[in-house]
Formats: sequence, C-alpha cells, structure tokens
Amino acid sequence: MTSGRDLPAALAELRGLLPQGRVLTDPDLTARYLHDEAEWAPVGAALAVVRPAGTAEVRDTVAWCARHRVPIVPRGAGTGLSGGANAVDGCVVLAMDAMDAVTLIDPAERLAVVQPGVVNDDLRRACAQRGLWYPPDPASAPWSTIGGNVATNAGGLCCVKYGVTRDYVLGLEAVVGAGEVVRLGRRTAKGVAGYDLCGLMVGSEGTLGVITEVTVRLRPGPRAAERTVAGAFDSLRAAGAAVAAVTAAGLEPSALELVDRETLRAVDAWKNMGLSAEGEVLLLARCDAPGAAGEAEADALHRCFTEAGAAWSARSTDQAEADALFSARRLAYPALERLGPLLTEDVCVPRSAVPEMLARIEDIAARHDTRIANVAHAGDGNLHPMFITPRGDDAARTRAQDAFEQIVDAAVDLGGTVTGEHGVGLLKRRGMERELGPQVLAMHRAVKAALDPAGIFNPGKVFT
Amino acid sequence: MTSGRDLPAALAELRGLLPQGRVLTDPDLTARYLHDEAEWAPVGAALAVVRPAGTAEVRDTVAWCARHRVPIVPRGAGTGLSGGANAVDGCVVLAMDAMDAVTLIDPAERLAVVQPGVVNDDLRRACAQRGLWYPPDPASAPWSTIGGNVATNAGGLCCVKYGVTRDYVLGLEAVVGAGEVVRLGRRTAKGVAGYDLCGLMVGSEGTLGVITEVTVRLRPGPRAAERTVAGAFDSLRAAGAAVAAVTAAGLEPSALELVDRETLRAVDAWKNMGLSAEGEVLLLARCDAPGAAGEAEADALHRCFTEAGAAWSARSTDQAEADALFSARRLAYPALERLGPLLTEDVCVPRSAVPEMLARIEDIAARHDTRIANVAHAGDGNLHPMFITPRGDDAARTRAQDAFEQIVDAAVDLGGTVTGEHGVGLLKRRGMERELGPQVLAMHRAVKAALDPAGIFNPGKVFT
Repeated sequence: MTSGRDLPAALAELRGLLPQGRVLTDPDLTARYLHDEAEWAPVGAALAVVRPAGTAEVRDTVAWCARHRVPIVPRGAGTGLSGGANAVDGCVVLAMDAMDAVTLIDPAERLAVVQPGVVNDDLRRACAQRGLWYPPDPASAPWSTIGGNVATNAGGLCCVKYGVTRDYVLGLEAVVGAGEVVRLGRRTAKGVAGYDLCGLMVGSEGTLGVITEVTVRLRPGPRAAERTVAGAFDSLRAAGAAVAAVTAAGLEPSALELVDRETLRAVDAWKNMGLSAEGEVLLLARCDAPGAAGEAEADALHRCFTEAGAAWSARSTDQAEADALFSARRLAYPALERLGPLLTEDVCVPRSAVPEMLARIEDIAARHDTRIANVAHAGDGNLHPMFITPRGDDAARTRAQDAFEQIVDAAVDLGGTVTGEHGVGLLKRRGMERELGPQVLAMHRAVKAALDPAGIFNPGKVFT
Repeated sequence: MTSGRDLPAALAELRGLLPQGRVLTDPDLTARYLHDEAEWAPVGAALAVVRPAGTAEVRDTVAWCARHRVPIVPRGAGTGLSGGANAVDGCVVLAMDAMDAVTLIDPAERLAVVQPGVVNDDLRRACAQRGLWYPPDPASAPWSTIGGNVATNAGGLCCVKYGVTRDYVLGLEAVVGAGEVVRLGRRTAKGVAGYDLCGLMVGSEGTLGVITEVTVRLRPGPRAAERTVAGAFDSLRAAGAAVAAVTAAGLEPSALELVDRETLRAVDAWKNMGLSAEGEVLLLARCDAPGAAGEAEADALHRCFTEAGAAWSARSTDQAEADALFSARRLAYPALERLGPLLTEDVCVPRSAVPEMLARIEDIAARHDTRIANVAHAGDGNLHPMFITPRGDDAARTRAQDAFEQIVDAAVDLGGTVTGEHGVGLLKRRGMERELGPQVLAMHRAVKAALDPAGIFNPGKVFT
C-alpha cells in the first residue's frame, strides 16, 4: 500500500484521472457512503469516496487502486444487512449510485441491460411499461440497486416460486484485476462456453471485482393479480404442518411467509390490529396462477391451512382485503424498529426444519435473555430472526451477540446455511467458515487469489 | 508425470488401492470408454480405465493420479458431442457409470440426491413415482447420465420454459485437487454463503474435479399433458416472424422447435411422410399449462403461426396426434444418420437472429459444397446444424470442417455463443477463445490453475 506520507500525492493523481467532483473526501459528503444497515458491524476509515459516472471512470479508479494497493469497497444503495459495504481502513469506497441508467429493455429477447446503480423498483417499473417483469423483489426494492442485488444474490418474497437474483443474471460487465474491463456471461437464452464466471461474480459481495453493467433475463408481464390466504396457528408445529401440506399438495405459492408472536405483538402495540390474539403464529400465502387455476390454488392453500389446524383462516376476495391480510408482514420491520436498534438475521434451513429452528431460536432467546422476533420466508426455509436490544445497553448487546452466533450454529446443525439471501459481509464470516469447512474455504481463497492477486477488492469481507 | 518405465509399478500400486476388477487395461474392455459421440474429435491413448463403485475409490484414484501426474478424464455415458470425454494420452479414464444409485428422493424438500452415473430417464422415472418432476430433458436422456449432464450443463426441449441443468443443481460432492472430497452448494432452497463453486463446477466439463454426488432440485408433478401446435412455413423469414410473435404475445411454450427443409427431406426419404412438400421449414410448439389455460395457450400459439403466414398449421386434439406432429423432430437424427457420419453443431444466437443465422448457414453450406441440415430449439435461439459427409471422403470432410468453423464465427458475430448446451470439449476451443477474448480467457486459466494446480483434470479440454 502507498505509504501514509505519499497518499496526498496519490490522491491528487486520482483526482487528475477523473472529472471534477467525482472524488469526495469531505466528511460531510462521505459520511452517507461509509456503511450499510448492519447493526454491530465495524466500519473503517475510508481514504475517499469515488462516485463514477461510467465504466471508464471505474476502470481508471481500479487501476489507480491496484497501483497504490488501495482497497476498494464497492457499494450500491447501502441497504445491505451484513456489513458487506462497510468501509475498511484506507479504502476507496466506489459508490455506484450515479450509474443508474436502464440502457436497454428488449422485449424480443426478454432481457434488460442496466447500469448497477439502477434501483430495483425503477427497473421493475420500466419493465412493466414494456409488458415485462423482473421478478426478484427484496424487501429493499424501493431503495436497493441492481448492482447490490447481484453482489449479494438478493432474494425476496416471490423467489419461493420465481427464484433469486442469480436466476435472472445473464451477463455482466465488470472491472477486475488491475483495471481490466471484461464481459462475462452472455445475452443468449442459453450458453455453456467456458466456466460460469458470471455466476461466480453473483453473490461474491464485491470481492472479485466491480460490476459496471448487468444483463438480466425478464419474464412476460403483466403478472396476474395475486390472491392472498392467511392462517393463524396455535403452535409452531401446526404452522409447520401447514407448510409441509402446501409442498405435499404440489402447490407453488408466489409467497409463503411466517410471522411469529413477538412480531405480531409489536405490530399490535403499534397499530392495535389484534393480531396476537388470533394465534401464536401467522402464515401468509399468495398465489398468482391466472383465472380459474388461481382460484383453485387459493382454495387449495386455504384447505392446507385449515386441515393443519389453523385457529383462523381466510382468503382475500379483492386487492384491498389481500393488502390488509399481508399488512402484518409489511409492518413487521417498522413495528420492531420502534423498540430499539434491530439486527436482522438470515439463516436458511430445510423447509421441514423451520418449526424446529424456530423452537431453537426461542430457547436461545430465553437462555440469553434476549428479545428475538421472527419473520420467515417459510416456503424457502429462510428465517429472519430480529434482535431487539435496548439502546445503550452494552450487556444486552453482548448477550444478543452470543445468541446470534448460537442461532448461526443451530442452522448449520440442522443442515442449513448461515445466510439465505443477505450475504456474509462481516457478520457471518465465522459461521460461514464453520459451514464450509477448511477444504472448501481453501478453494474460496484460491479463487480469490487467482482473480484478485493484489487483494484489493473488498478485502476482509466474506472470509478473512 | 511418472516416467514410462515406472508406469507398470505405478499401475500395480493403483490396482492395490482398489478392489479387484476396477482397473481395466484390456483393450477389449476399455474400448467403449475411450471416446464420446463427437465425430472428428481426436482420441488419445489411455493408460487405464477405472470404474469406481463409490466416492472413496474416486478419491484414492485421484490421489494416485495427482501423485503420479496422470491426467484424469471423467466420463458418464459418453453421449457428449464435443469430445469432452475423449481419452488423452497417458490418462486414466474415470468411468462413473457404475455409481448409479438414486440415493434419496425427498418430497418434503423437493430434492433428489443421486450418484453421477444415474441415467437421466431413470431419475425422471424415479421422481415421477413420487409425484415429482426433474425437468432437464436432453435428447440423450435415455442414455446420458446426471453426472455428464451436470458436467456439460445439458439443455433439452423443455428448457425454453423450465431452464437447463444448472437451474436444478443445488449441491455437489466432488473430488478435487489432490484427492480432497468436498461438498459444494447446499440442500436448502436458498443460500449465499460464499462463492457459487457448485455453479462453477456445472458446465466445467471435468476440468475442475470429479463429481461424485449431485443434489438436484425437483418440481411438483405430475406434469400436465402437453398440447402440440405445428406450422409449416414457406420461408425462414415467416418462421422467424412466428417465433417473434410467440414472444411478443407473452407466451411460454414448453418447447418451440424448428426443423428445416434438408431435415424434412431426409425424414421423407426414410418414412415418406410428405413433410417437405408442406413448406421450407416446420415449427413445432408444445404447451403444458393445465386445463383451460392450456387450451388458450395452444390457441394463441396456433394464431401466432397462422398470422405469421404459415402455409399450413394444426394443433393436436389428443396425444396420438401430438406425437405424430412431433415425429419430424423425433426422427430427424436417425433419418440424417442414415446418410453418413453426422457431426452435430450447437451454436446459440439471440432468438430474433435465428432466421439470419439459418440464412448464413445455408450460404456457408453452399460455398463449401457441404450438406447441412438444421434442427433448432428456436425459442432459445439454439441451433443444431448437422453436417453430413460421405463416408471416406476426406476432401468433403475438410470442406465441412471449414464450414463448421465459419458457422461458429457467424454465431459470435451475431452476438451469440459457440455452444448452447453441448459444451466446448475439443471441437469448440478455437471458437470459445474467440468468443471470450484474451482477458476472460486469462481469468479461466487463473481459476483452472487455482483449483487444479497439478493440471490433472481433463487437461486440454475446453481451453488449451
């Protein structure tokens, strides 16, 4: 790394390489670019923030970083929940939010080409205007960017039926190595020429290069209106039986969400909806098959809930009712955030292990005197335990951190993974290393060293 | 590599490591394991063929190969079409066909765990018996193995709607490096812990390790009965317009195949079906939406064909008629194989470029005085030009080889790829290197060197 006393000269060189205004060092301007939304994750001191306007500026910045051995932390909107976009000491944060053009929407090939800073919802809207649909729908869709979605392989509600971000990335342009601009993947529907390096970049959290363009596959639109089915259950076991029944019946809901008692209580405390009086746990399903098939599917979901012993179950007859039924899920985060800083966990287990995992979480919470509420993409086995710690209570935070690690271990013990859709970042490194084991970790390090020999891309993230 | 005079001792060591009968060197026994079905691709002289019965035997064989620097060529059923499974000089061929157990079918998690030697159709049958469906359906499904399907990321007819092999591989066990047994991927529906090394193995054609177990995702079954729509067109342009109309209408056929005049004539010459009198090109579509939605979809496909100017168009009302309509596609290969050795090409272009690509193929065929027939997965833009050369005519074969390379280049020029689903093997190396360019190729070499430092896994395949 360029030594401390040469840095001003090096930074002046970087400013000279880029148009005016791209390099930010004023703390008032850089502050919003230095971390993501992961509570507890450490944040380093950045050397500068660069906001490139195009691929050539990314290339020049990466080449400068490679020459001076300056770490690069790429970031989209900073809505990540694992610390993956947090600054590391002496780094350049590459803020991609200004590269926000939808370059092409091609109905004939059912694909779109976008810059990485395009906000997910903006892409979805632009596609809808052309009669097309981009399915990945992370909860952060109104703010998060496609580049960040790709870097973390973001999921969402509808991925239980339609897959995650990875399933929609056909090709990428990226700046890698010492500033080489490469195109990975393809624009054709199929292709097997060489290794899937495009897929390798998806979910690599900025550790292998900087994504400067994304080509995504689209589905035909408009999507059929969704029907909603809700069920309240007296026990986790009964709710688990309902989820299993949905699978056994061969149904493919477009969302299958679980909201636990702690969350229902928080929503009630805020909105007084009386949800927590209905049962211990709420299941919310959607289906989007068109016409009569959709009616039949909603009926079948309703039947699965009832026969599994739902204390209460209902299905929507119109959109307003559907929105009302889903409001417990929609209000979960803001309701819980009222109670204190919220750390969102993201383990994923085999879907039949969801009741057991929730029971273990409850037990861990009790043993650590920690308040944990849960929402889960139950159809995917992807749980989001949320830790609520009183502001300023360091002892509570330490107990919560212990509980966090025990939940991670419990997920691995149940045949699951430490992260279903949020990524490893800084918070899941220990858990991931345990999940993968030393040999697979060695393969990771070998790939990292092969593609980032200078070690400049988001160092210290994902693995140490 | 262990020098020639030490090889007998080394081979004796290998025999000592494995149960009796695993190591074959008798030419009568090894012959069938030395090449795949790629005409023209060179075949080397193997040192031995090993037929392991389990992961531990693969591990011991790989470790022995690593110690003695003996190349390893893994193979499934040898139905590949690019020479990827052809022996290289001095290699051990690892024939995985004896590892053919379906280890687990789990309806609750909608997944199956299989050994790599399981035949595709056998897995599909086993899944169907449990009310589940494994979609990838390469034409080789009655013979090809899941391990080979994964190694080449095989496609098939229904992947236009349901995706390719990659989309169904959740996890792998593989023997890598100097004989380490690793588990890549996961068993959960989602997961983003670390790099997608499982996806990196898919389509890597045995160059990164030996797959010893595959965990695949399944869909609910039974699949709805398919309806078939056929249309004959007087020009490639009109057929291309029909394919574009299907896309524009937002339809999602479960197959959309094209059969050209040369192929129709060959089928007629064999079966006298009168197909080539109907038009220049035949489009065959299937759809599998259930019930009334399927009826509507078949009607819409029929309308797309008619309005694009089909000279003749029909839709099936029962399964027998559907099978009859699809027979031109089913009979294409055997009809053409009657005419001489057949080399099957596999370029893939943006789907709107299919008519232009077919026109270029016709032009290249004429200029090289080479007979080329085409079938295409038109909905994917994936073409299979088939070269027919008279047996023993070396001049004709040289002309055909020139034509082959020009078709590969034409596909790249049209924004396509040199291989849609068959893999690179030996035949597409030049084309792939042109497609990827030097920087992406350098990334490939870096990954290969990182994960196979001894250079023992299928050396010389995919890239040189």
